[in-house]
Formats: sequence, structure tokens, C-alpha cells
Amino acid sequence: MRLQLLTAGESHGPGLTMILEGMPAGLPLDEDTINRDLARRQHGYGAGPRMKIEQDRARLLGGVMDGKTTGAPLSVFIENRDHSRWKDKLIQRFTVPRPGHADLSGVLKYGYDDLRPALERASARETAARVAGGAICRHLLAQFGIRIGGYVISIGEIRADLQALPLEERIQRALTSEVACPDEAAAQAMQARIREIMQARDTLGGVIEAIALGVPPGLGSYVHWERRLDARIAAAVMSIPAIKGVEIGPAFENTTRPGTQVHDPILLADADLYRPGVNSGGLEGGITTGQPIVVRAAMKPIATTLNPQRSVDLAEGREVETRYERSDFCPVPRAVVIVEAMLAFVLADALLEKLGGDSLAEMLPRFAALPRGRLGD
Amino acid sequence: MRLQLLTAGESHGPGLTMILEGMPAGLPLDEDTINRDLARRQHGYGAGPRMKIEQDRARLLGGVMDGKTTGAPLSVFIENRDHSRWKDKLIQRFTVPRPGHADLSGVLKYGYDDLRPALERASARETAARVAGGAICRHLLAQFGIRIGGYVISIGEIRADLQALPLEERIQRALTSEVACPDEAAAQAMQARIREIMQARDTLGGVIEAIALGVPPGLGSYVHWERRLDARIAAAVMSIPAIKGVEIGPAFENTTRPGTQVHDPILLADADLYRPGVNSGGLEGGITTGQPIVVRAAMKPIATTLNPQRSVDLAEGREVETRYERSDFCPVPRAVVIVEAMLAFVLADALLEKLGGDSLAEMLPRFAALPRGRLGD
Amino acid sequence: MRLQLLTAGESHGPGLTMILEGMPAGLPLDEDTINRDLARRQHGYGAGPRMKIEQDRARLLGGVMDGKTTGAPLSVFIENRDHSRWKDKLIQRFTVPRPGHADLSGVLKYGYDDLRPALERASARETAARVAGGAICRHLLAQFGIRIGGYVISIGEIRADLQALPLEERIQRALTSEVACPDEAAAQAMQARIREIMQARDTLGGVIEAIALGVPPGLGSYVHWERRLDARIAAAVMSIPAIKGVEIGPAFENTTRPGTQVHDPILLADADLYRPGVNSGGLEGGITTGQPIVVRAAMKPIATTLNPQRSVDLAEGREVETRYERSDFCPVPRAVVIVEAMLAFVLADALLEKLGGDSLAEMLPRFAALPRGRLGD
Amino acid sequence: MRLQLLTAGESHGPGLTMILEGMPAGLPLDEDTINRDLARRQHGYGAGPRMKIEQDRARLLGGVMDGKTTGAPLSVFIENRDHSRWKDKLIQRFTVPRPGHADLSGVLKYGYDDLRPALERASARETAARVAGGAICRHLLAQFGIRIGGYVISIGEIRADLQALPLEERIQRALTSEVACPDEAAAQAMQARIREIMQARDTLGGVIEAIALGVPPGLGSYVHWERRLDARIAAAVMSIPAIKGVEIGPAFENTTRPGTQVHDPILLADADLYRPGVNSGGLEGGITTGQPIVVRAAMKPIATTLNPQRSVDLAEGREVETRYERSDFCPVPRAVVIVEAMLAFVLADALLEKLGGDSLAEMLPRFAALPRGRLGD
Repeated sequence: MRLQLLTAGESHGPGLTMILEGMPAGLPLDEDTINRDLARRQHGYGAGPRMKIEQDRARLLGGVMDGKTTGAPLSVFIENRDHSRWKDKLIQRFTVPRPGHADLSGVLKYGYDDLRPALERASARETAARVAGGAICRHLLAQFGIRIGGYVISIGEIRADLQALPLEERIQRALTSEVACPDEAAAQAMQARIREIMQARDTLGGVIEAIALGVPPGLGSYVHWERRLDARIAAAVMSIPAIKGVEIGPAFENTTRPGTQVHDPILLADADLYRPGVNSGGLEGGITTGQPIVVRAAMKPIATTLNPQRSVDLAEGREVETRYERSDFCPVPRAVVIVEAMLAFVLADALLEKLGGDSLAEMLPRFAALPRGRLGD
Repeated sequence: MRLQLLTAGESHGPGLTMILEGMPAGLPLDEDTINRDLARRQHGYGAGPRMKIEQDRARLLGGVMDGKTTGAPLSVFIENRDHSRWKDKLIQRFTVPRPGHADLSGVLKYGYDDLRPALERASARETAARVAGGAICRHLLAQFGIRIGGYVISIGEIRADLQALPLEERIQRALTSEVACPDEAAAQAMQARIREIMQARDTLGGVIEAIALGVPPGLGSYVHWERRLDARIAAAVMSIPAIKGVEIGPAFENTTRPGTQVHDPILLADADLYRPGVNSGGLEGGITTGQPIVVRAAMKPIATTLNPQRSVDLAEGREVETRYERSDFCPVPRAVVIVEAMLAFVLADALLEKLGGDSLAEMLPRFAALPRGRLGD
Repeated sequence: MRLQLLTAGESHGPGLTMILEGMPAGLPLDEDTINRDLARRQHGYGAGPRMKIEQDRARLLGGVMDGKTTGAPLSVFIENRDHSRWKDKLIQRFTVPRPGHADLSGVLKYGYDDLRPALERASARETAARVAGGAICRHLLAQFGIRIGGYVISIGEIRADLQALPLEERIQRALTSEVACPDEAAAQAMQARIREIMQARDTLGGVIEAIALGVPPGLGSYVHWERRLDARIAAAVMSIPAIKGVEIGPAFENTTRPGTQVHDPILLADADLYRPGVNSGGLEGGITTGQPIVVRAAMKPIATTLNPQRSVDLAEGREVETRYERSDFCPVPRAVVIVEAMLAFVLADALLEKLGGDSLAEMLPRFAALPRGRLGD
Repeated sequence: MRLQLLTAGESHGPGLTMILEGMPAGLPLDEDTINRDLARRQHGYGAGPRMKIEQDRARLLGGVMDGKTTGAPLSVFIENRDHSRWKDKLIQRFTVPRPGHADLSGVLKYGYDDLRPALERASARETAARVAGGAICRHLLAQFGIRIGGYVISIGEIRADLQALPLEERIQRALTSEVACPDEAAAQAMQARIREIMQARDTLGGVIEAIALGVPPGLGSYVHWERRLDARIAAAVMSIPAIKGVEIGPAFENTTRPGTQVHDPILLADADLYRPGVNSGGLEGGITTGQPIVVRAAMKPIATTLNPQRSVDLAEGREVETRYERSDFCPVPRAVVIVEAMLAFVLADALLEKLGGDSLAEMLPRFAALPRGRLGD
């Protein structure tokens, strides 16, 4: 890996810090580019009340001079706007772990005598910093005509029907949907289902699909297991809180069909190799094929429910019910941009490996010279 | 990561080399321990004829003295027994890439003028070296009472029904099943389905479940995205050739159910915390909970089919049909041990991080002192 | 490596950001602990005028709750106090690279059309962020009785005579010396020499020795070249701007003496193994011996001299003389704490590898149980 | 880092295994290219009797097809020719650690009850595998006109005078010198000194200088401490057994001179930037300048002396004298190629970072387009 992305900061601390190391020099970059993605993370049907408070704004603290990256590590700070309200407040000890959350596993690992340190860092709040890093990666990819997008394909048991919809259009439609779903009818049903689940004081998960268009063939490799691009995408996407499953293309469905129906044929359109279908998810042998990359992420219903769940008070040593912590009912729509961010990170990393280079000016002609799947390449 | 696992070697070259760096000293180790797992990789209904040739045997070339590891890198060599037959043979140039295989993506990436270098390394033959490494990791874990097992839960559209079967028994039954499936009735149906697909000159994929029992809580972490154990498991499993999807527990199914039905309650059995259910797959917040770890891997039908598929002859520049390369019809049963190997690798790595230490003797008392999810831990 | 230390930020930007990932939970930590080391970096005879402006103060932005580390990444921000004065000022393009500085190599690498982006990041200002990280590492080591210190052993051609002075006392005396030199007479001569060089409008380098006391045997390893602790120390120390040479113990001098006079004997003091001498620099086979660690770093005279040097104006394409940029005359005394910081980082990393563990409470009993070089260990 | 180099194997085991991961496809490679460097490691005045036994031969086991690299990991096996003589021999327990060797630190770290596992792996025998990897890296660099060479500049107190000798000629002369020293008179004196030390039953160290010619500017970076090329060279060279000091250029000597006398001026020769002098050692700001790279390594006298040293019998618990293990008297000349190998590894890694690319064909035009320090670059 050439890129490193580190984040620091807690949910109710002063803010989130992000360092992205390994980006080339000469990329025009301003805070608005980052803020656009931060805003997408804060908006979506089913969000809880906290989102209104946050209004995240990125502050670029390093790596940019005169509006361009210098090749130095990029650092972004995102202030927690409600930190001042929490700072000197006496905070009650929290001792009843929520099933499904990092509360209990964090305590067992780190030996805390309060659950707060676990939930403060394991909170999805941290993903704002990743979205900031992802926005920069996406912006780099855009210089090469590579676009990343995403949308919701199911919430609870409601599934979108997207077969007939081209990938580009899915992305566009999702941007204006309250639930980030390009299928209007399904979107209505999803909103209705979310309203129900709110009334039932419960939570819902779903499945997100993120795609990348314009990716050249040849990123990633089969030669060493850690260099397989599907493995790197899987790690990056699975690392998002509440994501528990990842597919490259419709992988689970493909297990039910014979090989001759699964593999995308190799055809010719003039001298260009042409691959109808996206069953491969854009990767063969852990290497991009030049097809669109299609990644699916299964997000579990979040752990914090208004309806109590059975747990144990660790301080008192007896079974109790969980108490409510302010949270979302269905963060799936808002998580689309997070999946996109992690995909953008992995692709930017793989592109930098393929092209090498220390500046955008050095990379661009190398990119133009890449083989594109023509005969004779 | 503390452990490094590198493999080298091609499918028809002299053999496979594996180096595993980072193991502690003092672990008793012989070649039989490795050969047992290698044999499992070679046996299974639906395997092609090559398996009979191979009879893989590990040769330990480094890192062991007087029957014990020394802390030095372990190296294993697995000879390719049919290499002598290939060595000086004139091999025909291979120019028709198989859809679904690394043939084409390899050529586009590396600029070969023949597909052989791609398929020689991208071949599943390489996984024998990983199984050797995994066998050593599994053996280390066994010193701490941690067991890894696995089984097939579906082949094509045939699914096993395992609800009533305890995890331990699933592992045991799979070991004596031709298709590594613990559900006898489903196993019969799977074999019938594989016979059909052979006659149809096609291939089949399926879903494998690998589990780990006896894992202590506290491995992995939510504090940094690359340290999440679910992310590391996802990468390791997704890096196996033909694996295209990974779930921690029944992740995709869980997206269809409300939160209160998904999260495993936290209960008390005397002073022990007790977690009925395995919906979490054994991980919360990217950290082991002490529950069994349950990982599912979706394996696509392999790309080499007797029935031709549409492709292009890259030398002649015209659309043709693929020609047959000797291969399996359904390698899913044989892949169980590969998924186990990668899971064992990740868990051994995470255990070494948690315990530190340079020798088994140093690690054992530290393990005994780990918190186990009792009140007061 | 378990620890990661990333810094971001430029010399005249808003400030420096540091993230330290991999520290255990439960370490008491406040900003004063960091500020003490930051102050040492700013004080020393031969410093230029900038130091007065800076008065660096660390702000802890992540990883600490209720005065203790949580195991999450630690982030520190150090504001550049003179940033406001630079922010909207029109800055003249800088096109004459200073010999010995990163000016020219930075431009050739990154394709800048101005030297400023190179010097803004390559500036020694960045080391303030490392000192912050090193202060936290030093503080962790202190919990185990491991102390890091350092001092100047030569400036220009003036050498201290420290033979008779115990290591502990050298550290103490250096703390009160204007030139961080424990030999009073040499310190006087050094100050005189620095005054001369100031008047000569030139610069001076020197040699720094950093030591670690109380280090247990067994850190690092010979089994894999990247795990050798001498290699890791060499990289960390050599990565400091202007450091161009590193020795473990008196390595260059030892090359002139026969083996029987170089190696530190192994003796017994009751049942304890006892090693008189520190010719090994505390490492044998890339592993700590339990002796003091002694590292020497050669710092070149800095590149920015009041006296002009021969260079080329890259914009005008003709040979010119360098113009002065505000800088130090002899930063050697102030660099002592930077060498200490990098040594502390490597030792904290190696200790975490040896002990494993996620919290100080988990590490302490493991440390107490380490073998200490007694017979029977 | 893009390249990974792992070795495995013990001094008297079956042999040494080396895996080099990350090399591009399309590099012509045969075993002779490696054997040439292996032979250099075995030849040199002052070598002990073992060298005659070894006659190392590399066997390429992976990563090469039809005489060219494929991009897959390269693996090399070097058989230990005297293994058969040791295999089933009863080997006496070895319990008296040699001062200066890894014997004692290895036992304290790994808890062995015999010193053999430590000395078998810590032995300089392991460097044969590194030399094999280095030979491949050197061969890659040669495709770009980058040459690596080295020579001895001192043995014991005898120093060569090389001021007047161009770098190229130093390399050539060293190749035909028994002590790898380009200064004929000094070489004679060194041989006489080695004869003396043999008679005195003692050992000698010395200083090696390795250089790289034809290196383009722009490798390495100041933006992140781990990316500084001087740091990476320092780690790689310091990781060689018995190397305890590393300089980039004449670093320690440069600390005694004022800045204006140390920094290499920047001049013009037509439109080319021209840097007389090599005080920088070819690196400014951790980046190559385009000047020759000059690295010095201080090698201590080896620990195994015929003359006994004071030690402790760990089994009997009493002070004793060391017993002799067969070894060299002065391995400095033979170590030249090891230092070259590690330098070649670091430079190949840095070149791959700069150029990216998966095949030699992809890298060559990118190299040709690199800026070379002309005005207007």
C-alpha cells in the first residue's frame, strides 16, 4: 500500500483529525471539495437528531499550498460543534453494554471501568474523518476520469429493482432520493418501512452498492494475496462500523448458477475488447478488468434501539435492560458515501501503485499510455 | 500485523515455496501436521484428475530445530510432482483468455504475449502453500484451545439445513463427507447436482462456512480501521481465488430483520457473561466477543468449463470459443480447508498481537490471565 | 511495527498535526508531559530568532479521556503562532535552491515551480510534531522504569570528554547546559566556537548521543532483517533532518580495534549475568542485551548560511549566490530531544511487540515476568 | 515500501530460502546472474575454512518463466552443501555465549535451553539469501543504467587513500583485490594486518563504502519520515550482522567542518545543473540528488575469536572462557557485496515507487521521461 489513512478523535471530543499520507503533488484541492461529501454523510431519511447539530466543516491543516497539494501528508480537522456543551459536564458512568455494539468487547479488551471510551471511538462519528479522506481520493480519481458513486439497494426486506437502470443513472437518481435509492417505488416503500420501524422503536439495516466507472484494467494483482484488489476492497468496506458482509458483484447469487451463466463473455467491438455483463464486479483474478467495479455492503441494523434489549449492568452485576443512547433508526442511506469513500481510497491507492509518480503532471501521461484492452495492447 | 505469509511458485514449476514470518519459538512442529491439511485440500467430490497426481508433501526447510520452532521464519517447500513431465516439453502458446479467470486481466496488467504466466500463478495451485502456512497457524492456536473448522453450506442452489446441528458436530461430520457438508440429505443432493453439472460440462460454485471455537474476547480493535478483525478476515478470505463474497455471521440475512431480532443478548450465567446466538459472527466493533467466529465465503463457479464460452483469440484478433484446460468441476468442498487456513492466519496474527511474546512458554501464562468475560474482569 | 507515527503540516501553515496509533489504554497523559519536551526543542545556544516566536504548546485532540489514554489513536495539534502574520501576505517566489537543503531535490521530485513547498515541509519545524509523539512514547517507557536521555558530544571540532562520567549524570548535566553538553569545559569551548561561527556567518554541526537506561533484554530480533532493533533505530534517527550518520555504540572506533578488545565480557554477579562496558551499544544480534542503549547521530551543519553559497536561479537560469533565509547557526543542542524522541518511539514500539497487550494494566505484570539475565531465566 | 524481501533457513539446515515480492514482469533473469554475486560473498582474504565447503548455487524456484520474470514473487533456494554431514549427527549442547554475538540475547529473548538455535539463524550465513535478492535488484537497476559497487576503505587501523581515484575505478579495482580495496598500498598493509591478527588468534573489523552511480534525482522523500531514503538505506545496511554504524557520505567528518565547506555547490554546465563534490552522499532532504550515492558501513570485529573471551557457562552457572566455533578472522572484504545487496534492494524499491508499473516495458519510457536536473525540468 502506498496510501495511509489515519483518523483520530472521539464522538464528543474536540473533533476529528485525519491524515492522508502518500498523495501526489499538484492536485488542486479546497475545503469545499471535502465539505460536499461531509454533507452527504449528514443527510438522509432515518437519521437521528444529532445530525442537525453537526454541520461538519473540514479545515485543511496541512499538505496544501496555494490551493494545490504539495505531496506532503494532508491533514483535515473536523470540529465537533457540540463539544463545548459536553466539555465540562459531569457525565454519568455508563455500565450497561448494548448488544451488537462495541461496548462490551471494548471493555473486555481495554479494561475500562466505564463503557464511554469504547463508544466514543467506536461510534460512527469517526467515519466523518474517513469521508474527508475519501473525498480527496475521489477527487484525485476524477482527474483521470474515474467516478465513484453509490446507492441503497435494500432496506430491511424492501429491495430495489435496478436491472433496467444504467449505472450512471442509478448514481444520479440516488443523489436526489431521501433514502439514496434510485428506484422510486422502492424508495417510497423504504421510507414507509423506516417510519414503521421508528414507531416500533426499533432499527433497520440494508444493503448498499458502490460502483466505480472509468477504472482502467490492471489495478491489483493475483501474484500475492495481500495485493488482490478484491481483498483490499473487502477489508476497507468491512472496516466500516456496522458493515458485516461484502460482495464483489452479485457474489452470493452467482454461487447458485452454473459457470457458463456467470462469467462475462469476452467480445470484440472493432479492435476493442468488450465485456458485456458485470457479474465479475469488475475484477478477475483480483485485478480490475476495465468493467465497472461493483461492490455490495451489508449493513446490520444498528445496536442502539429505543426498545430495550436484554443486557447486564457490569457495575451492579445483574441482568437489566439497555437504556437508550441518542442514535439513528436507519443510517443506511447516510452510509452510502462512507462506502464510496473507502472504495475511493483503495482505488486511489491502487492507481498510485500502477502509475507511480510524485505529481499529477507526472501521472497524467502515464495514465494516458496505459493499455485499455485493445488488441495489440 | 505481526505475521507475514508469502508464497512463491507456479502451477507447473518446480514447486511452491512458503515463508511464514513472526511465529514464536518453542512450538512443536513436524511435517505431518502440515501434510494433514494438504491432504484435505486434495480430496473432495468434484475434483478434477489433477489431484491424483499431486499428493502434496511439505518439506520444512527453515525455522525448526529439534522438532520445535525457533522463532525464525518458517519455510516450507511443496514439490510439484508433475513438474518433471512439463519441464522440457514444448508448451503451446495460449492466447484465448477464459472469461472469469485472471487470463485476460493478467495479460493487460503485465504485458505478457502468452496467457501462461498469468494462469500459472493465478491458479488455485498456489493455495497449497497457504494451506501449509494455515496449518502452522492452526497448530499454534490449538495450543491455546482454539479450534478452526469449516464445511460447505451450499453448492449451486442446494442448501444445507444446519440450524439444529451444534457447531462442533458440523465440523466433525464435514470431515467424513465427500462434499464436506454436515447435512447428510443435502450432501446427497449436492453430489447428484455435481454429477449433473459434470455431464452438462459446466461448473458450480457454493458457500463455505468457517468457524473458530475457543477464541478469547478482545482480539482486533475498532480504534483504527485497519485493525478491525472483521476487515482483516474479509481481506484474507476474499484473497482466495474464486471467493467473491464474505460475511461475518449471516450478514446479508440480518439486513432484512429489525435490530432487536438481530443482536445477541448479553446475559449472566452465574458470574459469567453469556451470549446466546451467533448473529454477530463472533465480532462486535471489529473485536472478538468470545462467541464462536462464523465466516461465510461465496465461491463462484470456476472459469474453466468443458462447455466453451465466448472469447477472443488475442493472437489472431477474432472472436472464438474457449478451449478446455484441465480443471475441477466444483472445487467448493476442497476449498473449505483454504478458508480455514486464511482464518487461522488472521487469528494467529491477532492472538500474537494481544499476547505479544517470543515463545510459547511466554505466551501461555499471558493467555491464561486474559479476561474471559466474567464480572470483575 | 505496531506503532505508527504520522505528522502533517508546514512550517508557516496553521500548525502541525501528529497522530500516534497503537498506544495502550490506561496511560495517564496530559499536555504538560508533551510541552516539557517541546520546550527543550526550542531552547539551546545557537538557536536563531524564530524560536522566540514559537512557544509551542500541544493540544491533545484525540485518544485521551478523563486524563488517560483509551487505546485510540492519539492526536496532537501544535499551532504555528506566527501563522497569522504569514497567512494573507504576498510571498515572494523563491527560486535559488540552497546547497545541502531539500530545496532542489524537492523541486526535481515534485515538479514545483517555486521552492517554498519543499522547504515548508522539509523544514526542521516538522520535528516538533515528532517530539510530541516521542514525549508520549517516553512517558509510556517511564511506566516500566525505562529512561531516555541525551547530550551533545561534539560541536564542530570540539569534543567532550565523558569517559569518567556515569550515563545518568551525563543526562542530568546536559539538561542544565546551554549546549546540552555534560562536560563543562567542552561546553564553554563549544559556546565560544558557536559565537565565532555566528560572526563568520556560517553554521556548525556536531554529534549527539542518546541513551536508554533500564531497557530489558530481548527487544528486537535477528530472525528477520526488518526486525533488528539496530536497523529500526538507525532508520528512525537517520530520518531526522540533517542527521547523516548513526552509530550503535562507538561503532566506527570499534572497527580499529581487535575483537577481543571490543566485545563486552559476560560475567556473573551472584546469579545475575553482568556486562561491563558498553561497546555493544546495548545491542547484540539486533536484540537488546539489557545494557544501556547508546546511539550516536552525526548532524551536518545546516544548509542555510548567512554567507552566500554558489547556486543557480532556477527561474532565470543563471548561476547566482544563495540569499539568506532566517535560520539557526548550530541547532545541535536543540536536536538532542529529537534524537531522544525517535529512540523513544522505536523502543516503545519494540516493548509493545514484546509485551503485547492493550492496556498498561495488562502490560505491567508481563513486564515484571520478563527474564532479566539471571541464570535459570 | 513496494518490495518485500524475506529469507528463511539456518546455517546448518537444508538451505536458505529467499522470496522477493514486488518485482516487475519482463526482466530477463537466470541463475548465473545470482551466482556471480554469491561467489563474491564467498571469496576474500581472511575468510575461514567454511567458505570452501559452500560453493553456493542459486536455484530459482518461482517467478520466472521462459527466462523472464512474470511479476510473481521470485523465490531462490541455496542448498547448504554440508547439511548432509550435519543432519543426523549428535550435536553437543552449546551453553557458553560468545560476547558480541547473538548467543546470549537470543537465549534471553526466545527462552532456548541451548545456544544453537540463536547462532544458527543469527549467523552471517543468512546473508547469502540477501545477496541473492540483492543480485536481482541490482540486475533490475542495471536495465536503467544504475550501477552499484563497493569496496573496503579500512580494516582495523589501516585506511585506504582514495581521494584521487574516480568512483568507477574504485569499483573496478576492488573486484580484483584480495581485500576488495582499490588502494594497492593499503591493500598490502591490510593483508599483512590480517595475517597478524590470525596469528594473534583475534579478529578485525573495518569500514565498507558502497556506491550507486546513475541514480536519477527524486527517489525518496522528506514528506514522511519513513519515506526518507537515507533512513531506509540506514535500516537496510544496519540490519547486516556485525554492521553497527552507517554514514551517508562522510557524515561524521562533516560534523567538524563549517556549513559553507560541507554543502556541494549547485552549478550550471550549459543547461544542466551540476553538483561538484559528494559530501551529501547523494541525498538531500532524504531524496536522491542525481549525484552518486555514497554509503559507509562500520563492521565490528566478529565475535568468534580463537583467543578465548570471558563468559559464563549458562548450564553450569559459572564463569568460563569461550570455546572456539569455526569462523572468519576478517569478513570485511566478503561483506562488501552484502552492503551492495542491501543498497540495491532499497534503490530498486524506491525506483519502483517512483516509476510504478508492472513490467519493464512499462517502466522504461517512464524512466526516460524523468526530470534529470536540467533547467526547465
